[in-house]
Amino acid sequence: MTEPLSFWGWGRADRFPDRAARRSLAEQLGPLLGFEGLSPRPAPALESLQMPAPRLAAPPELAGFTTTDRRARARHTWGRAYPDIWRGLCGDFHAAPDLVALPRDEAEVISCLRWAESVGACVVPFGGGTSVVGGISCDGSEYAGVLSLDLTRLDRVLEVVPESLSARIQAGATGPVLERQLAEHGLTLRHYPQSFEFSTLGGWIATRAGGHFATLHTRIDPLVQAVRMVTPRGIWQTRRLPGSGAGPDPNGLALGSEGILGVITEAWMRVRPRPRFRARASVSFREHSAAVDACRRIAQSGLYPSDCRLLDRAEARLHTISMDGDHVLLLAFECADRPRSADLDRALAIVGECGGRLKDGPTTTQSSSGSAGAWRQMFLEAPYLHTTLVSLGLVVDTFETACTWDRFDALDRAIRAAVGAELDARGGGTLACRFTHVYPDGPAPYYTFLVRGDPDPLAAWQAVKAAASRAIIGNHGTITHHHAVGRTHRSVWAEERSAPFAHALAAAKSAVDPEWILNPGALLTTQERP
Amino acid sequence: MTEPLSFWGWGRADRFPDRAARRSLAEQLGPLLGFEGLSPRPAPALESLQMPAPRLAAPPELAGFTTTDRRARARHTWGRAYPDIWRGLCGDFHAAPDLVALPRDEAEVISCLRWAESVGACVVPFGGGTSVVGGISCDGSEYAGVLSLDLTRLDRVLEVVPESLSARIQAGATGPVLERQLAEHGLTLRHYPQSFEFSTLGGWIATRAGGHFATLHTRIDPLVQAVRMVTPRGIWQTRRLPGSGAGPDPNGLALGSEGILGVITEAWMRVRPRPRFRARASVSFREHSAAVDACRRIAQSGLYPSDCRLLDRAEARLHTISMDGDHVLLLAFECADRPRSADLDRALAIVGECGGRLKDGPTTTQSSSGSAGAWRQMFLEAPYLHTTLVSLGLVVDTFETACTWDRFDALDRAIRAAVGAELDARGGGTLACRFTHVYPDGPAPYYTFLVRGDPDPLAAWQAVKAAASRAIIGNHGTITHHHAVGRTHRSVWAEERSAPFAHALAAAKSAVDPEWILNPGALLTTQERP
Repeated sequence: MTEPLSFWGWGRADRFPDRAARRSLAEQLGPLLGFEGLSPRPAPALESLQMPAPRLAAPPELAGFTTTDRRARARHTWGRAYPDIWRGLCGDFHAAPDLVALPRDEAEVISCLRWAESVGACVVPFGGGTSVVGGISCDGSEYAGVLSLDLTRLDRVLEVVPESLSARIQAGATGPVLERQLAEHGLTLRHYPQSFEFSTLGGWIATRAGGHFATLHTRIDPLVQAVRMVTPRGIWQTRRLPGSGAGPDPNGLALGSEGILGVITEAWMRVRPRPRFRARASVSFREHSAAVDACRRIAQSGLYPSDCRLLDRAEARLHTISMDGDHVLLLAFECADRPRSADLDRALAIVGECGGRLKDGPTTTQSSSGSAGAWRQMFLEAPYLHTTLVSLGLVVDTFETACTWDRFDALDRAIRAAVGAELDARGGGTLACRFTHVYPDGPAPYYTFLVRGDPDPLAAWQAVKAAASRAIIGNHGTITHHHAVGRTHRSVWAEERSAPFAHALAAAKSAVDPEWILNPGALLTTQERP
Repeated sequence: MTEPLSFWGWGRADRFPDRAARRSLAEQLGPLLGFEGLSPRPAPALESLQMPAPRLAAPPELAGFTTTDRRARARHTWGRAYPDIWRGLCGDFHAAPDLVALPRDEAEVISCLRWAESVGACVVPFGGGTSVVGGISCDGSEYAGVLSLDLTRLDRVLEVVPESLSARIQAGATGPVLERQLAEHGLTLRHYPQSFEFSTLGGWIATRAGGHFATLHTRIDPLVQAVRMVTPRGIWQTRRLPGSGAGPDPNGLALGSEGILGVITEAWMRVRPRPRFRARASVSFREHSAAVDACRRIAQSGLYPSDCRLLDRAEARLHTISMDGDHVLLLAFECADRPRSADLDRALAIVGECGGRLKDGPTTTQSSSGSAGAWRQMFLEAPYLHTTLVSLGLVVDTFETACTWDRFDALDRAIRAAVGAELDARGGGTLACRFTHVYPDGPAPYYTFLVRGDPDPLAAWQAVKAAASRAIIGNHGTITHHHAVGRTHRSVWAEERSAPFAHALAAAKSAVDPEWILNPGALLTTQERP
């Protein structure tokens, strides 16, 4: 089995810069971000990883599509948040799954669940492995072993119904793989999380991933028409419908289930024609509160821009979009039916009333230059840069939330105070914020932080993360807008949700997964088993 | 306790026409609909209803807000579908609840659940009593008695946050009551089901009610920011957020729960400024398929009209909008921010390409005349007319579904064949269809039927309803787009949903309502108790 992807860092293995390139980057970053004396750490060697011997051996019926190959096990151990990459870099793969399965069809998925249940192993559904919340990392100490169930061989678009703008797509298809197949029909899903190149449809649904659209179709949720999910007690299949009011929505329990209720094998998705008309502009603000006000008014206007991304001055600087201390709002409209320039004009009028000054545009061409082009380039590069920065000894990560407009100010201040104190305690760092999505009732702010890691990088990350999480949960935010709960956010999520809901979810899990073999520890602990 | 509402028919008791008025209506209807010899049946007399003696007596702690008053029990027995009104008219109140509670605050709701559980009674949450699916009618034969829990005293708007377009509203507030309070802040929920005058916010949420908007916000679901639901095992409170990706959505399990998981006591709702700009027009089509095509193209255009209601020729005739055999499409846009005339123009261009001919408009004034005005008037009058027609011996009812565009043709043909055969077997009748809501991936068709009831009206209704339900479920529809499941649709819904979901829902119910006291028989039977 060849493995072109890095087993420890972001994306393709050959994209990790060599030592000289990283040393040169460290020298540039010194003055820019105020970090001196950074030095590149070598990439881990496959031969010298700390990894326990596998506790599971595949039975004959799984032998054709499973492996205990060292590289495969390493690749399926950690996600891609800071601690994942740092541990990988250090060669720490203590939580490696015992067996990796790459089923070729749904029958093989069912065989995996059946066998795992019979031997007391647990099963971790695996898409792109890009979780930033510990969603795929399970130590399995209460089980006979851990089976990582990699869905990426189920990657086909099985059916397309252009009349109803729907397509049946296998859950293991990554962004580029499914978009290539849809493009043959002139259609697109237009769901672009930052992990687009590697993450999968099933992963997006299981984690309620955030996508391309700043408004209306912000997460994958409204794009799901029907799901098919293999549970240990049968197939959870929902009906292909544009809408239904029959009982609680069965799609709604699958969305965000993070692999604890079943293994999503395919879904009917709402697709669309590729946009033909575009209109975009970027706007500068001196005052952040004025920019927030502009976002609020646009979100409440019913204009529904595809992009309404507010970068605060630190974020604009990190993305080399504005170095002069301005906050920048990226606005865009797109449509397959008609020009949207009039809607952009109206949005710009609102922005003007709030004190914004036009920076780029308006233009109706595709973005390849200006602020939008710079943003797009950086958006795609950022995860690779993240791995590189981690290898220089920096603690770099992101977290996101959502809150109502009336609570944003206090929440943002609390986050800046709490995280800022942790950064200061470590010699200072950077905290930047952007709005990834906006709703009529509130924004989804997304924060990036950078700080020196020495002497104990994991402890530093833990301290910043805890400070951020406490500030969020104590100030009416949600612990995640689109990065999921996983294991990282589980205990804080327990404060966000109400007890009756948690009991209902645990009972629902027991009904379809009575042995609790599916992704134990994500969302719920085994102590919550009824 | 005064009871200005009819205990058996739609709405206000004094709106039921006298015998002479109904006889005159019967004479007009003869030639119009082909029903001759219809004669008015007298309204039922409270004194002579068949109603069993109450099996429950309120304990001291509930005495201040409960009653066994005959009129109150009658009023809380049936919903307002055909069989409900027919049974009421016949004086059949065999399923009357044993006790009616009208709690004044949440603590009294909690007391009701606690007492009911302790004595083995079941509890039926009651809003406006306008269910058309048997949602509030429970015979309680497996329980010590039935407590009808009427929420209508909890009718206040408790908090308004204009900045975030949100309002906290008690669940028992009816449409006019909550709109009156929101209007003081220049805000509106703009959710107008046909039952608007009497149904309540809690009922809308529990049944995923369909509302005013033809696109985007078709049902109450997306207007719900957070819910508060009293369960026998604690308060199911969701966080007030514009969006969250943390686990399966806890609002999603409350929405459509039809009182089986808890009693909704209040909700944070997404409200909006009142629209200042309107644009509307109506369009005629000779061919229904061309009109369907126009609706599909508009639904897929991203224009998001507030109204996109296609009346087939029978429906247009029933509503006296077009008597010449044309199908009529009512189109409207509304906005608080800016004129939408350009969007209407674009929609009309699409309609023109599909062969539609302008009938009324375009206009930017409020509808009080033309097709839109006629529609609005009839929409509000229809439920009263329904009760009157039932009293003349006609079997009149509606059913609705949703399907993808590619399946509409076959579904519609199957419904017309199956229902048509039942109408023909009874001397002929009328079957009319309108689209109440449209989605990019499919329409929500809504059917009305009229047929003579004699000799056995309930059997006639049952035959037509069964034929419609079989056609829907066998042709890729949903058993309900926005009328809920209740008891009427329960067995057919069992075919629509998958077994693992049903088991998960039953387990979730057991977790929060271990004695299954809440609305037993709606959605699930007690045989499905784990």
